Amino acid sequence: MDPRTGLPVVGMVGAGQLARMTYQAAIALGVRLRVLAGDAHDAAAQVAHDVVLGSHRSYDDLAAFAAGCDVITFDHEQVPPEVMAKLAAAGHQLRPSPDALQFAQDKRAMREKLSSLDLRIPHWAAVSTVDDIVDFAGRSGWPVVVKAVRGGYDGRGVWLVPGPDEAASLATGGADLIVEEHVAMRRELAAVVARSPFGQLAAWPVVETVQREGVCVQVLAPAPGIDPDLAVEAQRIAATIAGALDVTGVLAVEMFETSAGLVVNELAMRPHNSAHWTIEGSCTSQFEQHLRAVLDYPLGDPRAMAPAVAMANVFGPAAEQSTVDERVHHVLASDPGAKIHWYGKQSRPGRKLGHVTVSGDDPVEVRERAARAAAGLQGGGR
Amino acid sequence: MDPRTGLPVVGMVGAGQLARMTYQAAIALGVRLRVLAGDAHDAAAQVAHDVVLGSHRSYDDLAAFAAGCDVITFDHEQVPPEVMAKLAAAGHQLRPSPDALQFAQDKRAMREKLSSLDLRIPHWAAVSTVDDIVDFAGRSGWPVVVKAVRGGYDGRGVWLVPGPDEAASLATGGADLIVEEHVAMRRELAAVVARSPFGQLAAWPVVETVQREGVCVQVLAPAPGIDPDLAVEAQRIAATIAGALDVTGVLAVEMFETSAGLVVNELAMRPHNSAHWTIEGSCTSQFEQHLRAVLDYPLGDPRAMAPAVAMANVFGPAAEQSTVDERVHHVLASDPGAKIHWYGKQSRPGRKLGHVTVSGDDPVEVRERAARAAAGLQGGGR
Repeated sequence: MDPRTGLPVVGMVGAGQLARMTYQAAIALGVRLRVLAGDAHDAAAQVAHDVVLGSHRSYDDLAAFAAGCDVITFDHEQVPPEVMAKLAAAGHQLRPSPDALQFAQDKRAMREKLSSLDLRIPHWAAVSTVDDIVDFAGRSGWPVVVKAVRGGYDGRGVWLVPGPDEAASLATGGADLIVEEHVAMRRELAAVVARSPFGQLAAWPVVETVQREGVCVQVLAPAPGIDPDLAVEAQRIAATIAGALDVTGVLAVEMFETSAGLVVNELAMRPHNSAHWTIEGSCTSQFEQHLRAVLDYPLGDPRAMAPAVAMANVFGPAAEQSTVDERVHHVLASDPGAKIHWYGKQSRPGRKLGHVTVSGDDPVEVRERAARAAAGLQGGGR
Repeated sequence: MDPRTGLPVVGMVGAGQLARMTYQAAIALGVRLRVLAGDAHDAAAQVAHDVVLGSHRSYDDLAAFAAGCDVITFDHEQVPPEVMAKLAAAGHQLRPSPDALQFAQDKRAMREKLSSLDLRIPHWAAVSTVDDIVDFAGRSGWPVVVKAVRGGYDGRGVWLVPGPDEAASLATGGADLIVEEHVAMRRELAAVVARSPFGQLAAWPVVETVQREGVCVQVLAPAPGIDPDLAVEAQRIAATIAGALDVTGVLAVEMFETSAGLVVNELAMRPHNSAHWTIEGSCTSQFEQHLRAVLDYPLGDPRAMAPAVAMANVFGPAAEQSTVDERVHHVLASDPGAKIHWYGKQSRPGRKLGHVTVSGDDPVEVRERAARAAAGLQGGGR
């Protein structure tokens, strides 16, 4: 607790854009949010008042960071399990807990757990050799999806493998791997919920996530034209996982919508790109809700504040043909309702630099506006 | 400009709750907001990354603070005019300009200027003695309102004087004074607009401000049941003042609604309590809009996002009968849609510690909910 205000102190490990946006929510709640940053230029390290520089892999750095925090939470899944276990043993309150987080850190453990919950997931197998992959494809058919068990995100650590030649030349850097069938799908959905230690659960409307080359480029809330029963089913699946894995904080469950129903793809136990739209689009943003959940505050109302909300990510352009200042002027003039979120990052081609959200009545219109604003901020193609 | 992001650096003089909430908006816009704080515990000084400690009355402190900022703006009106003139002469970009700000700093200059614009204002006179006040009341009738020409806010520097005895015993601390008629009114309204150096203007819906003992306790947006023509007239008055005074940034114009129309009471050239509801309730918050205006960015859409929005201020209780942590749990559980904003201040009886906003369809319901949440956070009467 901060003795001046009587309000809690939360430590967030990692200082990327998720911590940066959580920081905005913490200011309103009066919560002191301390961030552990690897670099003083990290997105959240630029804006937070209480920044500790250190490594999320070092127990000593984490223990020093955690001193005086009422609870520790995470902007990413990269803290080694043995380090988390030691922090928990030392009496620090980690939310989500190491027991829950292992399923977001280890895709093999996650697949095993989801199998035990009787949820539909892709056919999969743990593999160690090219022959293992070819054997699996012999049963499931090509292409297959190969994933690193640990460390992947935003399309990294995931390979779509069309055939045996590509399997043989895969550069996985010696990572532990799993292989999965390539699921034929209509589209990708995400069901995002928050769960408190008390067990309270709040679910945002189910969204469609639009991917390009394995990277999320747009999120449409709610998923346009989704069957109401399917949306309820998606929320039920997310709630089942949150409860079974004893998640605290935000849980994002990425799913495939197929002709045979929903197939669970990935999950993340932290604020997630698929719910950035909630900052403007929901009564309670995922960042506020994550803080409320890890503090065991009662959760906020997750309902949408507009019939249709679209979010588009902004990536660094391949070449800078105008200044970012010119592009901001242009986009803000073109669409006075577009809400810009910059992450404070230096531009690099393809790097996620920010996002734009547009709310309105018509899903087609808000999607088009968000895409146009994002393209304008990028100043050209991605 | 920040060379890493290509985005601007804004300096805000003063580090109260207005700077604190502006900081949240700056994070999204990617704007680096530096604050000049008198005390490291100031509301914004607790959360900002780039805090300069110094006095807003010292030219040297301000000049050092302003170095490297693209534009300087203000969380209050307390910088001495001669200091502002020197800063402007040294080439710093001040928005609003000293020429505009004088009318927010000096109630006599403001009254003279508004008289010249042919706007309805209370009958008034500059006074220096008790006899002057009694003379004025002889023409206008008792009670009268006596105001310090400089430095008043939140009911300070304003005295409702019932008769000559009270006038004689007035403790004004030797301030320059004006006296005004006590306007018989239905209620108080505020028209808040933003204006850019280019001259673009954006007006939020006109609100009702509910006062208790001269202090704003609630704001209702839009003003319940307001005649549409009167609302347009209120916006026109604010636009007229913004243009005539060459305001940049947010301008709040407080008015009386009387049986004979609108009477202009006070004005402020900065984000204002009467527009805190815009954080959740408008497509563009006053804090984002103020930054856009002072940066000469195109302004954002000021429309309301819900049919009815109510804001209630939270004041420090006379006695603490429970912990603030208990009260937060209670209020968040009672109303999952209430949005809390704490300012990070230590509680003192009657001190403004934060506010709560509720959005919905029914003005009566949102007002009742906001009032209940604020009372719950106060843990008893004010």
